[in-house]
Amino acid sequence: MSRLIFVTGGARSGKSSYAERRAAASGGAVTYLATAQAFDDEMRERIARHRTDRPAGWRTVEEPLDVPGQVAQMQTDVLLLDCLSLWVSNMLLADWTEDEMLAATEQLLAACARVPTAILVTNEVGLGIVPDNALARRYRDVLGRVNQRCAAASDEAFVLVSGLTVTLKGEKQGV
Amino acid sequence: MSRLIFVTGGARSGKSSYAERRAAASGGAVTYLATAQAFDDEMRERIARHRTDRPAGWRTVEEPLDVPGQVAQMQTDVLLLDCLSLWVSNMLLADWTEDEMLAATEQLLAACARVPTAILVTNEVGLGIVPDNALARRYRDVLGRVNQRCAAASDEAFVLVSGLTVTLKGEKQGV
Amino acid sequence: MSRLIFVTGGARSGKSSYAERRAAASGGAVTYLATAQAFDDEMRERIARHRTDRPAGWRTVEEPLDVPGQVAQMQTDVLLLDCLSLWVSNMLLADWTEDEMLAATEQLLAACARVPTAILVTNEVGLGIVPDNALARRYRDVLGRVNQRCAAASDEAFVLVSGLTVTLKGEKQGV
Repeated sequence: MSRLIFVTGGARSGKSSYAERRAAASGGAVTYLATAQAFDDEMRERIARHRTDRPAGWRTVEEPLDVPGQVAQMQTDVLLLDCLSLWVSNMLLADWTEDEMLAATEQLLAACARVPTAILVTNEVGLGIVPDNALARRYRDVLGRVNQRCAAASDEAFVLVSGLTVTLKGEKQGV
Repeated sequence: MSRLIFVTGGARSGKSSYAERRAAASGGAVTYLATAQAFDDEMRERIARHRTDRPAGWRTVEEPLDVPGQVAQMQTDVLLLDCLSLWVSNMLLADWTEDEMLAATEQLLAACARVPTAILVTNEVGLGIVPDNALARRYRDVLGRVNQRCAAASDEAFVLVSGLTVTLKGEKQGV
Repeated sequence: MSRLIFVTGGARSGKSSYAERRAAASGGAVTYLATAQAFDDEMRERIARHRTDRPAGWRTVEEPLDVPGQVAQMQTDVLLLDCLSLWVSNMLLADWTEDEMLAATEQLLAACARVPTAILVTNEVGLGIVPDNALARRYRDVLGRVNQRCAAASDEAFVLVSGLTVTLKGEKQGV
């Protein structure tokens, strides 16, 4: 029996912290799969800061694109994937089509079903004014579809607001 | 007795799909009122894709501005209006004043009270950084007011996040 | 015993109105602390409109930066602070460092603990596309941290959507 936990929210909403608390509370071996790529100093700094915030015992894997492949071969009790939103951004910038991205999402969900507990972190990006540029609009569209698909497949889903959880699916959790 | 259902959410949050499932579940004749106007190819493509996704038996009415007038003369069991946000955008671009838009909203709500079930779909656009341009800020302001008014008048209200519902008012629904 | 109520939401989501209804329902003397600064006519108009919307008996204090200092010396039953988001914006534009802003947040929370009821209004700004400009990204980051800290310290927390409340913490309120 595999358990899929979907965690979404805006920037600085506490979604990564919540996901990490859930992973830590599980008691098992945790593999942290980071999809972030450092294109500039600001991003490098964010990645480094996030890394020092995580428990020392966790294994970290960095993979910008072949996320399903990494998960498929993973031996772990808990997968914490942070985040779907950067993975989609990486695929978009690598010129994947929407169909390819949605197929990769299905592969990811199939791979997650092999892991006892998989926690998927993502971003909500569609609650502002329609962006001026077409790439940002495509990103909103594809990420929205990927999020819907993963949320639909999840056993528990939460949206974080100011560090607090709203339960979308499953039981409210105390951590 | 008329029933008003208010459905909001961000871009690609699943709000239209949810509204369509609610309309389909009602069992009655459904009229789909589309407020979208195709100004360019991207929009034309979105509109066409949405149309092919809808059940064949539904009647479709397209009306960018006189939405209250259309609803007032409508004979249907279920009105599915998608969406308030494009209607407000159309009124703003047609140089309606805020008072005129709020008066039209009251006319719409009065007309909806004639229909057994009215489902209003809209967008949340105020949860990003304050937009640079004044028109976008006006749009956020007016749409926010229209949304508040319609939500206040509703019997059930939901916000969609990653395809899942958060109940704002009324009972949680299974569809 | 002091009570801290945290109220967040997007632009025009009804968060100020909700906070004002809660303040009015308390029955005690209310001090309204406004952090807005009028840099231009649009802002001046917004501030004036908000002021005329408030009950005549309330005391109004305007303070863009030394918000903790104002609260520390305040004699009132209810503090309504509207809003944290403009306070953070003011500190950022005054070149405060993130550490200084977070320290000021702790001072504010300590000062609020002296007031029987403190209601903090703020904005969610992190649910759109990542902003182009670095200052806006810094603002999202710092405000997100300030919001998380205040929400964590609160007894009740709500996010407003289209004028309706979602309870983040504490019991659902009827006002």
